[in-house]
Amino acid sequence: MQFELNKEYIQQVQSCLQEDLNAPLLEEINQLHPADIAEVMDQLEREEANRLFGILDNEIATQVLIELEEDIRENLMESLGAQEIADKLISNMDSDDAVDVVAELPDKKKDDVISAIEDIDQAQVIVDLLSYPEDSAGGLMAKELIKVRKDWTPIKCIREMRKQAEDIENVYTIYVVNERDKLLGTLSLKKLLLASSGDKVEDLYFEDILSVKAYEKSEEVASIMKKYDLIVLPVVDELNRLIGRITIDDIVDVIQEEAEKDYQMASGLSVNVDSADSIGMLTRARLPWLLVGLLGGILGAMVINQYEAQLGLYPEMALFIPLIAAMGGNVGVQSSAIIVQGLANNSLGFDSLSYKLGKEFLVALLNGVVCSILILLYTIFFKDSLDLAATVSIALVLVIIFAGLFGTLVPLMLDRYNIDPALATGPFITTMNDIVGLFIYFGIGHIMYGLL
Amino acid sequence: MQFELNKEYIQQVQSCLQEDLNAPLLEEINQLHPADIAEVMDQLEREEANRLFGILDNEIATQVLIELEEDIRENLMESLGAQEIADKLISNMDSDDAVDVVAELPDKKKDDVISAIEDIDQAQVIVDLLSYPEDSAGGLMAKELIKVRKDWTPIKCIREMRKQAEDIENVYTIYVVNERDKLLGTLSLKKLLLASSGDKVEDLYFEDILSVKAYEKSEEVASIMKKYDLIVLPVVDELNRLIGRITIDDIVDVIQEEAEKDYQMASGLSVNVDSADSIGMLTRARLPWLLVGLLGGILGAMVINQYEAQLGLYPEMALFIPLIAAMGGNVGVQSSAIIVQGLANNSLGFDSLSYKLGKEFLVALLNGVVCSILILLYTIFFKDSLDLAATVSIALVLVIIFAGLFGTLVPLMLDRYNIDPALATGPFITTMNDIVGLFIYFGIGHIMYGLL
Repeated sequence: MQFELNKEYIQQVQSCLQEDLNAPLLEEINQLHPADIAEVMDQLEREEANRLFGILDNEIATQVLIELEEDIRENLMESLGAQEIADKLISNMDSDDAVDVVAELPDKKKDDVISAIEDIDQAQVIVDLLSYPEDSAGGLMAKELIKVRKDWTPIKCIREMRKQAEDIENVYTIYVVNERDKLLGTLSLKKLLLASSGDKVEDLYFEDILSVKAYEKSEEVASIMKKYDLIVLPVVDELNRLIGRITIDDIVDVIQEEAEKDYQMASGLSVNVDSADSIGMLTRARLPWLLVGLLGGILGAMVINQYEAQLGLYPEMALFIPLIAAMGGNVGVQSSAIIVQGLANNSLGFDSLSYKLGKEFLVALLNGVVCSILILLYTIFFKDSLDLAATVSIALVLVIIFAGLFGTLVPLMLDRYNIDPALATGPFITTMNDIVGLFIYFGIGHIMYGLL
Repeated sequence: MQFELNKEYIQQVQSCLQEDLNAPLLEEINQLHPADIAEVMDQLEREEANRLFGILDNEIATQVLIELEEDIRENLMESLGAQEIADKLISNMDSDDAVDVVAELPDKKKDDVISAIEDIDQAQVIVDLLSYPEDSAGGLMAKELIKVRKDWTPIKCIREMRKQAEDIENVYTIYVVNERDKLLGTLSLKKLLLASSGDKVEDLYFEDILSVKAYEKSEEVASIMKKYDLIVLPVVDELNRLIGRITIDDIVDVIQEEAEKDYQMASGLSVNVDSADSIGMLTRARLPWLLVGLLGGILGAMVINQYEAQLGLYPEMALFIPLIAAMGGNVGVQSSAIIVQGLANNSLGFDSLSYKLGKEFLVALLNGVVCSILILLYTIFFKDSLDLAATVSIALVLVIIFAGLFGTLVPLMLDRYNIDPALATGPFITTMNDIVGLFIYFGIGHIMYGLL
């Protein structure tokens, strides 16, 4: 049944770790699901977490390690020797998890751990997998899989599969390859069990399957698995030879990370942080975009400064500075967000750029006119100034249209140059829109007050 | 192999649909993966999409229907009669997909389709499933599963499983229940095949499994499946009786939707839209938050109006209005975003509210002091005004601290009252921060200019 972590439990664990390492409570922790143990460890002080890890059974410890938050795991690995890591932890792991853990180690320790691995084949597999970029299909795949040759008989298949299955936890799919390991298709267990002894795999297997190349980006892998509702996806090399498989649980993490990245951009965070991070780390995530905002504010001050004489004559223009700046920012983020999400989901369709801009123009015009009429009425009634009313409402329509078009164009341009389009929803573009908005506002004001 | 959709292909399909419904190209479409066919249909005009759907083989059409975008599917269902929907489409579907399709129909048609379903059992299952809220475990689950009784022998299990498996595509897990259908555990296929004929299920099965209640929220289901890396999760009723199972592919959609919802809130979109939606729909998504921003701008104007006399005396104060407003907004969104993400990932830990606010105070103070020093230097050097410099830099620190604390507090409060905390990253709070920022700025200005 599901385990509910609470503060009291953490405190009990802490006092046992301080006072009595043989307490029954600590014995019980070994019975929890590894993901729950990891959650407990994430809440402990580092020293305590390391101590708790030390009393876990080896096999449990291996699974807990994979589930830990990255910084807790790194700290833990520092406290362990290379031989210990290799013998107690790596030797029990699936290749995809092992390589993730090894990849996080400092270079020197990485080499030590790899040379300390007793099973040469496992060490070789880890070295192979380390060569793929972390955010590629190769970086996500595991080497453990079940494969049969197309010229085998059912009996030979079952015999070979038993051998292969020994160190595989879940058999998702049986892959069919030729004598050169080229991926040909998949074989269903049902068909295999119902086959007569004279059959061969080549008569039984299903040919029409999807695979990805090892260097495919992980976002692309995620979008394929999502689109086709796949639980597992085979990975092939340039010669279409089967080299691994990716399971959906790793892809869930990719999807989550992608979404978080976009959300952080939109919120003005430059690094992935959570509230438990240190003050220094939080500042590192937050200060860069604040400085961009600060620079934007200074540029805004310069724009207004240009029109200081005009502002001296018509001080009521100052009233609507925040409105103009805020509306430009809001509209820009809205239109960028729609494009960014469309790019992420491959759902933008095949409309031309001019069609997209034309449509955005109409949406912005509609929104702008509604907002303008409201602000026009407010200004006429409450400020009793026709000049000001005309200036604010004309400027507002123009600002909304500009921000909408700009917000549509920028993410598309960033994407074309392979820059993350989510940047466009961050404070950079918002700030740009603020400044341009002020220009428009004072420019219109200049004309209006000149005319009247 | 994977199919790459392009504009030319769509155009070819369109001209075939207009001119020659027997064209070989349209024949070929039947060979594509249903998800690809759905992607083609999403790009066509509605009339064309309906025509293409009409020439698909029945079984393919069923799978395509599930993959379509919601609005295209609704349009398609309008064009089909209740009898046709029941016979050709619903009858071939898994219960979770069937109920999704039926749930989207208008009430009258929903009843017609259900009464047109020939298989009474299937109709009953659909009616059952319709009773669960869409965003609950019951709303996500399918009824198709393999279950065995704990008192059965291996031979009886295999015989019964063959019957049950007939209309199930993928056997993920074999569930073990007692005579009252209470979920007891799972049975591995390996153990079942290796068992001797004298064994009973109760000697072989694995007891320690996770399940969810039917009324559990889908976000909660997603977080359990994510945390424990599950491919499939059983659903039970209040008496722990097994009533269905949820597979990871449906959860991937939940995770995606959750993330998109937060992203939309942060971007000021009130409805999930994409760029292909109509201008009216896009306006409906965008205008509400713009009106909130507009109201905020008007309130901002009122604040400045309060200090009009002061602004007349010290017009240079107008220069930094955009800076103060923007920085308050930015800091508020940053600190809210960290809390919102922490709430979504259950990673906030057990620190007290005062600890959280104290930490945010320090982060904001640090960020605020850095920004303030920079703006102080800028103002002294370039504006040559000590009053202004002191006013802007003091106000900026205070605004950043206020916005940081407010941004931390609001999502926590919303969450306590079961309101979506992501609201706090939307334009509502940004606007609030703008206004309070202006108050602080002019208040400080009032004091400073009074003093000097």
